[in-house]
Amino acid sequence: MSEALSAPELERRLRKIGEERYHNLHPFHKMLHGGKLDFGQVQAWALNRYCYQAAIPRKDAALMAKLEDRELRREWIHRIHDHDGFGADAGGIERWFKLTDGLQLDRAYVASQAGALPATRFACEAYVRFVYERSNLEAIASSLTELFAPAIHAERIAGMLENYDFISDDLVAYFRKRLDQAPRDCSFALAHVLEHARTPEQQQAALNALTFKTEVLWAQLDALYLAYVDPGFIPPGAFRPEGR
Amino acid sequence: MSEALSAPELERRLRKIGEERYHNLHPFHKMLHGGKLDFGQVQAWALNRYCYQAAIPRKDAALMAKLEDRELRREWIHRIHDHDGFGADAGGIERWFKLTDGLQLDRAYVASQAGALPATRFACEAYVRFVYERSNLEAIASSLTELFAPAIHAERIAGMLENYDFISDDLVAYFRKRLDQAPRDCSFALAHVLEHARTPEQQQAALNALTFKTEVLWAQLDALYLAYVDPGFIPPGAFRPEGR
Repeated sequence: MSEALSAPELERRLRKIGEERYHNLHPFHKMLHGGKLDFGQVQAWALNRYCYQAAIPRKDAALMAKLEDRELRREWIHRIHDHDGFGADAGGIERWFKLTDGLQLDRAYVASQAGALPATRFACEAYVRFVYERSNLEAIASSLTELFAPAIHAERIAGMLENYDFISDDLVAYFRKRLDQAPRDCSFALAHVLEHARTPEQQQAALNALTFKTEVLWAQLDALYLAYVDPGFIPPGAFRPEGR
Repeated sequence: MSEALSAPELERRLRKIGEERYHNLHPFHKMLHGGKLDFGQVQAWALNRYCYQAAIPRKDAALMAKLEDRELRREWIHRIHDHDGFGADAGGIERWFKLTDGLQLDRAYVASQAGALPATRFACEAYVRFVYERSNLEAIASSLTELFAPAIHAERIAGMLENYDFISDDLVAYFRKRLDQAPRDCSFALAHVLEHARTPEQQQAALNALTFKTEVLWAQLDALYLAYVDPGFIPPGAFRPEGR
């Protein structure tokens, strides 16, 4: 870009990244939502996705460690509350355990991340490092996949409840809660990015950061597909569904 | 150390570091508490110490970015609340501004840190980096200067109220609040260190971390003394009290 974009045009380009790259487009997600996975494959998904859930409050803290602006820290901290829990709310990670409990996975095994695919762990750690090492603008822009999350969560709740007899309403509590939380988060973050990405370089950096984040999410589904769908190469040490 | 210390012996050695190295022993602190500073010197102290206050929530977030243990994060996050404020509590940084307001320093100038001594800023940033880069045990051990803080705060409140007519009760609200907060924080952190520093290497690392932290605090007073007491070398760009 040689000239700075208007805010509406920058927003359009950010949203376009979601249309082209968000992980709802990945074949694994289509299988998940369409009832095409078996019990073991859904277990593998929930077990691996736990690594991402566990990384979220750490990446939010990594951003806060760099924020000199107290008002921004005061706004951002509720994201850590949302995931780790605060006061009466047990938090999103606890709700994720409801799902893995329901899928008959041992909590300590899930929490240890010992059975997760290495590619999953690498992707999640890359996200935490990105947030710590890049500019605050890029770190905040990378959170904007939440713009695209409510649609996927609504689809996931409906699709999983309809298609899997082992998925009940209390197992999808995590996603229901995120339907409320994500819009609040992303409208704040979007306004921040549109306000602070002024130069062509900053705008390109924000677009690249969001692209990077879609890659973090996509890579996790690629790894699941390869290990648990086709060709089914489960790496040594990784979770093996019963009978495989 | 060739053999591991018992927990009581480790605690004794940690406390001994405070007895020998905590900044209440620094000549500048003795002057501050004893009413030996003039208005401009107290201004310089409050202005510089603001940098430390502002760094605290960032160093706590830096630790949280590394903590894999959700329970530990849930415990630690209240420190960020204490400083940045949360809900009805405006927080410790806001209370620090009450002090700098009372000392007729402009808030924007204080917050900019533009008038702070470079040595102050370097020391504070060294603390944030230490917490991020060292082990979680060392990061937590470095917080243990709070073991020694209540005594200095009580002495400071009494000494400053008695000795300076420009210091009133609402200006020392920060220190009053810390009289309640610090003991809670440090008893948790001390128990954690005593439980997790088991090997001689870990114990030495914890002792070194606390020593490092006393150096972070001491260096700030050295810089103040040099610039504003004797020989009074105020670096270019740093705050100059009226008439100097």
